[in-house]
Amino acid sequence: MRASVLRDGRMVYRDDVPDPVPGPGQVLVAVRACGICGSDLHFAAHGQKVLEMSSQVAGDGGGMAVDLGRDIFMGHEFSAEVLEAGPDTATHPPGTLVTSLPVLLSGKGAEPIVYSNTTLGGYAERMLLSAPLLLPVPNGLDLKHAAMTEPMAVGLHAVNKSGIKSDEPTLVLGCGPIGLAIIAALKLRGVQNIAAADFSPKRRELATAMGAHQTFDPAQGSPFDAVKAAVVFEAVGVPGIIDDVLRRARRGTRLVVAGVCMESDIIHPFFATANEISIQFSLAYDMAEFTESLRAIAEGDIDVGPMITGEVGLDGVGAAFDDLADPERHCKILVTP
Amino acid sequence: MRASVLRDGRMVYRDDVPDPVPGPGQVLVAVRACGICGSDLHFAAHGQKVLEMSSQVAGDGGGMAVDLGRDIFMGHEFSAEVLEAGPDTATHPPGTLVTSLPVLLSGKGAEPIVYSNTTLGGYAERMLLSAPLLLPVPNGLDLKHAAMTEPMAVGLHAVNKSGIKSDEPTLVLGCGPIGLAIIAALKLRGVQNIAAADFSPKRRELATAMGAHQTFDPAQGSPFDAVKAAVVFEAVGVPGIIDDVLRRARRGTRLVVAGVCMESDIIHPFFATANEISIQFSLAYDMAEFTESLRAIAEGDIDVGPMITGEVGLDGVGAAFDDLADPERHCKILVTP
Repeated sequence: MRASVLRDGRMVYRDDVPDPVPGPGQVLVAVRACGICGSDLHFAAHGQKVLEMSSQVAGDGGGMAVDLGRDIFMGHEFSAEVLEAGPDTATHPPGTLVTSLPVLLSGKGAEPIVYSNTTLGGYAERMLLSAPLLLPVPNGLDLKHAAMTEPMAVGLHAVNKSGIKSDEPTLVLGCGPIGLAIIAALKLRGVQNIAAADFSPKRRELATAMGAHQTFDPAQGSPFDAVKAAVVFEAVGVPGIIDDVLRRARRGTRLVVAGVCMESDIIHPFFATANEISIQFSLAYDMAEFTESLRAIAEGDIDVGPMITGEVGLDGVGAAFDDLADPERHCKILVTP
Repeated sequence: MRASVLRDGRMVYRDDVPDPVPGPGQVLVAVRACGICGSDLHFAAHGQKVLEMSSQVAGDGGGMAVDLGRDIFMGHEFSAEVLEAGPDTATHPPGTLVTSLPVLLSGKGAEPIVYSNTTLGGYAERMLLSAPLLLPVPNGLDLKHAAMTEPMAVGLHAVNKSGIKSDEPTLVLGCGPIGLAIIAALKLRGVQNIAAADFSPKRRELATAMGAHQTFDPAQGSPFDAVKAAVVFEAVGVPGIIDDVLRRARRGTRLVVAGVCMESDIIHPFFATANEISIQFSLAYDMAEFTESLRAIAEGDIDVGPMITGEVGLDGVGAAFDDLADPERHCKILVTP
């Protein structure tokens, strides 16, 4: 079957990938749409660094057995159609439209569907999912919108982690897909004062479309001069941002770090001490948040339409990775096999 | 009158300091005991750095108008005896034994009693306090113990900030006065599993005396290998500690930073992201915590006796600053004018 795989840092089209065979508890599905995530771009460019950093992390977060010298399957933001259940597996009937947490359960345990030499992701015609994790897509929801369930759940999780109250002013730094998902989740939670900052005019437009009440261009001055935020979301993920928040934020600010920064970073702890700032690092989401994300999209509480700026086939994934470098042109590109 | 002042980085004894005169709302008191704080040692050695860092902080925490070229009064952990009220000031009668938040109220506002060219601190025979902030020392409490109200309140505040529950295992890194105050506050809150780490055998002994259930020497291996702490308190305040916690702590750990680090520090945000760690920076205390600290000491819920390892007169402050460099010899030295 057809797939797009990471090989030597580039996405390569293949038409000779063996069809996966569902085991017990697994379901073969046809991918209908799969979003390209910033973390995929980052892994393609800096895979060795990602693996090194992961191996240094203690506990649950650590360790990924991926061989960068072999083809790597990716794609973790997908919607799909059920084709066939594995042996002794009760699941939805063929033709059911679904999404799922990107986790493949097997006799060996739970494997994240993210970067793997063996487990297919959504950049493929077909892949395996786990029967207990399937969520039927509500009738009539565009499958491209359903594929946005995962990134929007990331925003919802960050907002839940913040404990924000609806009357607390908030500032979102960075209006890429994660920042926009955070803005959408803040709007969903009824937050009344949402400010957002991004250098890109197009991204600021998207921020407004997703629910930001005011936007700032950091090139024109620090948004902290204009916004007295109680909660700040960092959705940039590059060194220097955290320290800038610590230096500028007001007393008692809660900073939620949703951007993923693989580099080392310099902070001045005294800035945080002087104003008793807290920093909550946020990653992924739980099953309830994933489910709520799908529901919110399906019911129109979150309109992901503006975020989807492109669509490519499996043979266009490599070019799409390049195109996503320009925030003026693209936000989220979906692969539709 | 007599006082010990900071001059060119050294504590100098003077006997020619003019007696302060209480204004409206102020009270002249005779200092009975004043603890030497690590922050005083730090200011003596790195005053310029402290002032620079403070001036860079936004909001409430920022800015101290101190001229390092002139004598500087310090001493913010004190107990005292009321001598005389200022004009039109209702307060406790002369002879009342008191402690107070180290803040001097005047017509110009509230000034912290910490480092000043003009406002006396506790390293002096007499000083001014604010009538509304005076707390009478309960009858019979040793005034040296009462002087420990302030540092113990710092520990109580950090523990309150952590939101720790009594059944959550905790690890305190660093058993200087702040780490020990945290241990005492954890014990006060009924926390059942308190681990503490310090390179000094004497400090580990003190940790046990204050309530730690187990202690670790980091030279013998990381305490994180032995303790699965839900809440970690950082009470060291030197670069590198925060990143070590981020790398080693288990998923969902709440890190409370109570150590004050004036240097820049390097962290790897990804370590914190991978395990969704939160960092709460903690500073000082509020009035309720200060009051509870005094009450806990007076009622014997916290025994500060083991922490007090020395006592000097105003002419011995300089030598005491030097002596405090050795954790085997000293923890808290009190100045008794």
